[in-house]
Amino acid sequence: MQTHTLLMPLDMHLHLRDAVMLENVAPLSAYSFSGAIIMPNLVPPVDTKEAVIAYKERIMAAVPNDFFEPYMTLFYKNYDKKFLLDVEEDITAIKLYPAGITTNSEGGVSSFDIEEMRPTLETMAELGIPLCVHGETDGFVMDREAEFMSIYELLAQNFPTLKIIMEHITTKAAVDMLDKYENLYATITVHHLLLTLDDVVGGMMQPHLFCKPIAKRPEDLDALLSIALEAHPKVMFGSDSAPHPQHAKESCGCAAGVFTAPIALQLLCEIFDQFGKLDNLQDFVSDNAQRIYGICPEFKEVTLEKRTFVVPENYGGVVPMFAGEAIGWAIESVD
Amino acid sequence: MQTHTLLMPLDMHLHLRDAVMLENVAPLSAYSFSGAIIMPNLVPPVDTKEAVIAYKERIMAAVPNDFFEPYMTLFYKNYDKKFLLDVEEDITAIKLYPAGITTNSEGGVSSFDIEEMRPTLETMAELGIPLCVHGETDGFVMDREAEFMSIYELLAQNFPTLKIIMEHITTKAAVDMLDKYENLYATITVHHLLLTLDDVVGGMMQPHLFCKPIAKRPEDLDALLSIALEAHPKVMFGSDSAPHPQHAKESCGCAAGVFTAPIALQLLCEIFDQFGKLDNLQDFVSDNAQRIYGICPEFKEVTLEKRTFVVPENYGGVVPMFAGEAIGWAIESVD
Repeated sequence: MQTHTLLMPLDMHLHLRDAVMLENVAPLSAYSFSGAIIMPNLVPPVDTKEAVIAYKERIMAAVPNDFFEPYMTLFYKNYDKKFLLDVEEDITAIKLYPAGITTNSEGGVSSFDIEEMRPTLETMAELGIPLCVHGETDGFVMDREAEFMSIYELLAQNFPTLKIIMEHITTKAAVDMLDKYENLYATITVHHLLLTLDDVVGGMMQPHLFCKPIAKRPEDLDALLSIALEAHPKVMFGSDSAPHPQHAKESCGCAAGVFTAPIALQLLCEIFDQFGKLDNLQDFVSDNAQRIYGICPEFKEVTLEKRTFVVPENYGGVVPMFAGEAIGWAIESVD
Repeated sequence: MQTHTLLMPLDMHLHLRDAVMLENVAPLSAYSFSGAIIMPNLVPPVDTKEAVIAYKERIMAAVPNDFFEPYMTLFYKNYDKKFLLDVEEDITAIKLYPAGITTNSEGGVSSFDIEEMRPTLETMAELGIPLCVHGETDGFVMDREAEFMSIYELLAQNFPTLKIIMEHITTKAAVDMLDKYENLYATITVHHLLLTLDDVVGGMMQPHLFCKPIAKRPEDLDALLSIALEAHPKVMFGSDSAPHPQHAKESCGCAAGVFTAPIALQLLCEIFDQFGKLDNLQDFVSDNAQRIYGICPEFKEVTLEKRTFVVPENYGGVVPMFAGEAIGWAIESVD
C-alpha cells in the first residue's frame, strides 16, 4: 500500500477559539501538526502580552502532549516600540484584520493610513515580526480580495523589509501579486484548493463550505493549485480551519468558516497525489514555512496511507468539511 | 397617508407545488393577484392534458374564491401537433427547463438540438403558445445565465414568430438581449430587484435568499432595476416565488428558492416608490403581461398603503423573504 511521510507539518493559519471549543479542537490539530500559527480573533481580541501568554497556556493545557507548538499572534493595532520589544519573545507574528471583515474582527483596522501605521510596521520590520493580513475590502463579495491588492502593494512598497503574509489567498489576482514584491508571501487553505463558488451555492447551498474569503472562480482555483502544487517558495499551507458549532452553521444566517484541521493532511495528500506532486508536499506543508518564518518545530513524523477514510460526521459538535464522505488518504501513524 | 392602487396584478412566474404545500401557498397568491403563470415542475412534471386539467382543479380547490386565474403551463418536451392542438385551450404557455438545472427539472431538455425541437416550436409559434425558458447552462454559477444567451439567440433566430420569455432574468447580459430580438421577452422577480450575491453570502450565509438563478453582481442589479422601473414594454413581473419547508432551507444542503408571493406587491411598491416610479408599476405588474400574453384577467383592485408592515416569520412553515423585518408598504384592501 502506498504511504507518504511528512516531517513536522505546520498549519500556518489556525483558529482554535477558546474554552470548550478550544478543548475540543486543539487536540485534533496537535495530533497531526508540529505547530500552528494561532489566530488572535477572540472576544476580546488578543492584544496584550498577558493575553498572549494566558491564551498560549490555555492552548497548552488543552493539548494532550508537548509535541505541538502554538505560534502565537497579536491582534494588529498601532503598538508602540516599547510594547513590541516587551512582547517580541512571546509572539511569532501580528495579524491584521480590516475592521468587521470576518468573525470577531470588529476591532480591526478601519482605514489604511500608512503614516499612522508607519511606526508600528517599521518597528515590526526592525524586530523581524511578520505581518499576517486578512486581505479583503468591504466591496462586492467576489471582488473583495482583488480590490485589496492595492493595499498589499502600498504595504509592500512602504515597508520593504517587513514580511507580509497574504493570508488564505483565493484569487489569481493574489497569486499574480506574489512575485511582484520580494516581501510578500502567502498561505493557502486546503479547501481553497478544492472548491469554487459552485460548490458553495451552485447546487444546493452548502453551509459547511461557506467561508471568508469565499471560494472564487474556476480560473482562481487553477491559479492557486498551480503555485501550491509546485510548492512555490513563498507559499505555505495554512488551514484557516475555523470551528463553529453545528447550529451556527445550519441555520438562518450561517457563520463563515470551514473546519478542516483533522482532515487537512489527508486531503492535501489526496490532492498532491492526484496531480503527481506528492514530492512537493513537504515544502508546502512545512519547509517553506520554516524558512519564511525562521522557525524550528519539534520533531514529528506523520505517515499517511493511500486508503479510504470516511470523514466523521462531526468532531464534538463541529461538522468538518466532507462530513460522512470518503477521501483517499488516511493517517497511518504519528511519531 | 399615501396609497397606491394596482389593477389586476399578475404574477407571470409562480410555483404553487402540490398537496399540503399547494393548499398553504395558493391562497396567499390568490389574495393579492388576479392570476399567475403556474410552473409545471411537479414530480412527475405536468406533461399531459390530463395532468394540466387535474392540477388546475387542485389549484382552484385550494383558493378560497374565484377571483384568481391559474394560467397553466406544460413541462416542455418535444410534443407533436396533434397533442398541442388538443391541449392548446388548457394552457397559456409551455415551460422549458434545461435538464437538472433547478428543482424537479430532471426531465428537461438535455441538448438544444434545434432540428429536434423544430416541429414542436414551429407548432407552438403557429398556435400562439409562448415558450417560457429557464435560461441557464450547467457552467460556473455566476456565468450560467450569460452563457445561455447564445441559446436564446438560436431560438429567437430560428423561430422568429415564437414568443420566447426569458424567465427570471438576473444579468445585464439578459437585459442587453431583450431589444436585440423582437420575439424575446422577460420576467423579473422582486428579489432580483433587491439582491446581489453579497446579500446571499457576503455577510452571514442567508439560505432564505438563496435561489436559482442566484443573485448576481451590483451592475446586474442596476441593469434589472433600470428596465423594471421604466416598465420596459417587454418586461413583466414574475415572482418565481418558490416555497420550501423551513427545514429544507435551514439545513446542510439548502434547497434553492425564495418565497415572496405574499409580500411581492408590497415590496414592489416600496422599490418603485423609492425611485419615484410608482406610476410605472401598473405596466410592470399587469399591463405588459396582458398585452404580451393576450390575456384578460378578471377584475381585481389592490390598494396598498405606505406604512410599516412587519413580514410574518413564516406562512404555514414556509419562511418568506425578509421574515420578521419591516417593509414600507402594506396591502390596505383588495376588491
